[in-house]
Amino acid sequence: MSQQTDEQQIRALIAKWMEVSKSGDVDARMNLMTEDVVFLTPGNPPMRRDDFAAASKAMEGKVQIDGKAEVEEVTVQGDVAICWTRLEVSVTPLAGGETMRRAGNTLTVFRRGTDGQWRIWRDANGMGPA
Amino acid sequence: MSQQTDEQQIRALIAKWMEVSKSGDVDARMNLMTEDVVFLTPGNPPMRRDDFAAASKAMEGKVQIDGKAEVEEVTVQGDVAICWTRLEVSVTPLAGGETMRRAGNTLTVFRRGTDGQWRIWRDANGMGPA
Repeated sequence: MSQQTDEQQIRALIAKWMEVSKSGDVDARMNLMTEDVVFLTPGNPPMRRDDFAAASKAMEGKVQIDGKAEVEEVTVQGDVAICWTRLEVSVTPLAGGETMRRAGNTLTVFRRGTDGQWRIWRDANGMGPA
Repeated sequence: MSQQTDEQQIRALIAKWMEVSKSGDVDARMNLMTEDVVFLTPGNPPMRRDDFAAASKAMEGKVQIDGKAEVEEVTVQGDVAICWTRLEVSVTPLAGGETMRRAGNTLTVFRRGTDGQWRIWRDANGMGPA
């Protein structure tokens, strides 16, 4: 088995994030973030792990998420990695209704845990209507 | 002379950033960012050093900027530092007119240069109307 570089691991994590967002697997998504994760979004208070889990559970089975992530840059330093990503996301209500499309640039900092796994630690998401 | 820790240097840089924003000293502000700096803001294309300088020059002498930065967290790893800041900024036209107020959370990554100075390198600014 060939060893992935740190950058390859980060890119695989982002691809996995998009994949589990689409499949709606909340637990798999929670496994991709640290215990002390913080998501920063415009106009909202900081969202922590429990907030994220609650919001995801509330959406479970109600929407279909789709989207793509274009990685602009990954910078690894020790056990942190900084990543600039261009995101496009669409959220479609399963009961019918209009698809909401959002796009924008996101700055994410990943942390490598003591188990060697990279996880999302800080995320500033500048997405707006697209 | 006592030596400042990295975190103290980052906090001093943020204070200096607010100070030179208020005084309108564009050159001093440019000195606080790396050559390859990128600012990410919602709904706008990424802004690089030349874009920032041009936008600052266009505002020079036309507005009074005020504001405060509350540092939530500074994390230093090697020659990068990750900082989460709560920002409040107001921009008042000197010719008269309404003050625009914006507030929000910002994730900034600083880099230490070969000269030992920390500078802003990546910034995702989630400010909105306040």
